[in-house]
Amino acid sequence: MRTLSATGAVGSPADQATVRRLNLGLLMRSLAAGGPRSRARLAEDTGLNKATVSSLVTELVDRGLVTEGIIQRRGVGRPGRTIEVNVGVVRCIGLELNVDYLAGVITDLTGRVLARRRMSLPMLDLGPARAMGQVAEMAGELVAGCGATPNQVQTLHLSLPGLIDIDAGVLAYGPNLRWRQVDVVHTLMGRLRWAGTRIAVDNDANLGAMAEYASGPSAGSNNLLYLVGEIGVGAGMIIDGRIVRGATGFAGEVGHMPIGDPTVQCGCGRRGCWETAVGMNAVVDAVSADRGDRLREGDMTARLAEIVRRAEAGDARTLAALTSAGRNLGVGASVLANLLDPEVIIFGGHFAALEKYVADAVSAEMRSRVLGGEVMACRIEYSTLGFEAPALGAAHAGIDSLINDPTLVLVAQ
Amino acid sequence: MRTLSATGAVGSPADQATVRRLNLGLLMRSLAAGGPRSRARLAEDTGLNKATVSSLVTELVDRGLVTEGIIQRRGVGRPGRTIEVNVGVVRCIGLELNVDYLAGVITDLTGRVLARRRMSLPMLDLGPARAMGQVAEMAGELVAGCGATPNQVQTLHLSLPGLIDIDAGVLAYGPNLRWRQVDVVHTLMGRLRWAGTRIAVDNDANLGAMAEYASGPSAGSNNLLYLVGEIGVGAGMIIDGRIVRGATGFAGEVGHMPIGDPTVQCGCGRRGCWETAVGMNAVVDAVSADRGDRLREGDMTARLAEIVRRAEAGDARTLAALTSAGRNLGVGASVLANLLDPEVIIFGGHFAALEKYVADAVSAEMRSRVLGGEVMACRIEYSTLGFEAPALGAAHAGIDSLINDPTLVLVAQ
Repeated sequence: MRTLSATGAVGSPADQATVRRLNLGLLMRSLAAGGPRSRARLAEDTGLNKATVSSLVTELVDRGLVTEGIIQRRGVGRPGRTIEVNVGVVRCIGLELNVDYLAGVITDLTGRVLARRRMSLPMLDLGPARAMGQVAEMAGELVAGCGATPNQVQTLHLSLPGLIDIDAGVLAYGPNLRWRQVDVVHTLMGRLRWAGTRIAVDNDANLGAMAEYASGPSAGSNNLLYLVGEIGVGAGMIIDGRIVRGATGFAGEVGHMPIGDPTVQCGCGRRGCWETAVGMNAVVDAVSADRGDRLREGDMTARLAEIVRRAEAGDARTLAALTSAGRNLGVGASVLANLLDPEVIIFGGHFAALEKYVADAVSAEMRSRVLGGEVMACRIEYSTLGFEAPALGAAHAGIDSLINDPTLVLVAQ
Repeated sequence: MRTLSATGAVGSPADQATVRRLNLGLLMRSLAAGGPRSRARLAEDTGLNKATVSSLVTELVDRGLVTEGIIQRRGVGRPGRTIEVNVGVVRCIGLELNVDYLAGVITDLTGRVLARRRMSLPMLDLGPARAMGQVAEMAGELVAGCGATPNQVQTLHLSLPGLIDIDAGVLAYGPNLRWRQVDVVHTLMGRLRWAGTRIAVDNDANLGAMAEYASGPSAGSNNLLYLVGEIGVGAGMIIDGRIVRGATGFAGEVGHMPIGDPTVQCGCGRRGCWETAVGMNAVVDAVSADRGDRLREGDMTARLAEIVRRAEAGDARTLAALTSAGRNLGVGASVLANLLDPEVIIFGGHFAALEKYVADAVSAEMRSRVLGGEVMACRIEYSTLGFEAPALGAAHAGIDSLINDPTLVLVAQ
């Protein structure tokens, strides 16, 4: 007989080290969410006793994760120092590689962006080896750009569009990049040779979801879906406070739900896939006057700006195309809402840039299609993090790993 | 900033009591999964030290959860007794109420069924109050039927078809029962007045999934979807080893995905819902020769037997209808596979009874529609637990709660 654990209970013995690791994480999460506080207040807020808090704080100071801040005088007692997340030592890098650009941020442990880079790059022409060279180069620039040194960089996470084998650190297949079996993590380790940096890779949808969870308007929503759409459409899913990856790591492939126009052929060979109705190419096709339309050229940002310009000018073809895309977005979002009952579905990528012209149609479809009515009230939001979301989420993936297990950070020498 | 915890880390301080509770659970899970063993072997298998195992075993014996079994003589050392799950004290009841029947099982802590009951009941005529009376009566019969007493019954879980508010213990809405806001848990507490029994309610899809996880051919699959279909179609989802309920508890509503024939009206008022193509009524409509066909009457088991009889006899209309249902089943299952990347999707309810005539069409659609090819190889299975799955899952939901937190069971007096 197999026993299902409602709490995701540990499968290994718990001991004193487990207790300490869990409590270090509890203290760090409390500090990250609630800001600087005295030891006494931290004890109150976490339920840990004062002696334990003091011992844990000493360890966190040694690891460079917290500092003692300004002196606070409260009443007649001995003045105490507030404890706060150390913004001065640990650095986390998040990068996003997509078909025609590379973007990156470097943050402190609170998620504040200290430097950012973005460059257009034709990845199809570069190929994976040279592209990884560019990634490593940008990582170095980010470190230099904020006056840090590589040994401060505890984590580097890279976002890629495609199917990722997280455990192996490999891009299994990136259909739009046309890359297969790229050993991302070891390549970057070899190029950077930063001994203390943990390197990882994940897909853009998962990392976009993490960015929203960390710092978007719905931060902390434990059931949050993030839809990223450019050429393809993918979903990053946080369910019960955890990223859902599936049995083989490939969860989130929503672009080929057969809910589009069954006469339209998709790049995958099938007909009626959702992304043929809502992907960026579908929107461009519907808005374009003819094959020579300049919408079909240039980078994503420029093309989106042109679509918005035409909509603002009241171009009937454009407005009709965006309303239709909005309806189809709403149909797909309602499938996800009925299946997963999230608190919020957040549209990222080009959807967010087109909010003004798709939102009414999306809402109308959601109202008529989501079951459970007012009880199951799934909100729709449009990402305010823009195209930086996956890079920011990549930095947060690193931050989260350190905050949940502070023992990953070696004691400063 | 909000921190995402990859491990679902605890939000409260860990202390000695936490450690002990986690380790009691670890030991019980090991015994439930791996069978009787010596203390020394348990220490090896769990990684706990022998002194800890002995102390934990003493507590588990006191709570009536394990017993010392036969004496085993190994080599020249002192003979030892094997420790095993106590099948003699604790009892768990699982019941399923559906539109036209009530079914129940009572089990020991290993999930062995000690008694079962099943009766046809017209719930629409009875209404919720009298129906709950029947549930309580069956619970009493199950206890008597295996020679137990109510104070041995640690858990009673009831499966209902509909939207359940788990925390409140309330059926929010049962569309096919036409019940709203039924306070199931308190009603049963009041009717039974079994002081030591924890009573809970969940839906048939979630509990079917738990039954498959506990004892089906894919037991222990941490990413498992279970589809239950009678009038409606619902999904029970185990993702990363936990049941997914959604933000408001209503996850799993797959029956209204707009992937069916867009000209067919659904009971919900929309068109093209999945259940208009694969639900039991849709199958009956497609198989029936005319409105007077006797397929339209009688209980589910009898109607399914008649459909199978016609298929066996080679009736062309029946075979075509089942192939079409199989294709539509495969289309919907592929949407779920692409989104959630489960190890296995298990068809329960009437789907399982029709396996022989739908399986080829299901497989063909899955092969052509699931992305990731051989890597993301989602299996399709047909439940072997039959219509008893939700009741069995309800018993297992109780067993799982006790095994994961043995401190829920009071020390025997």
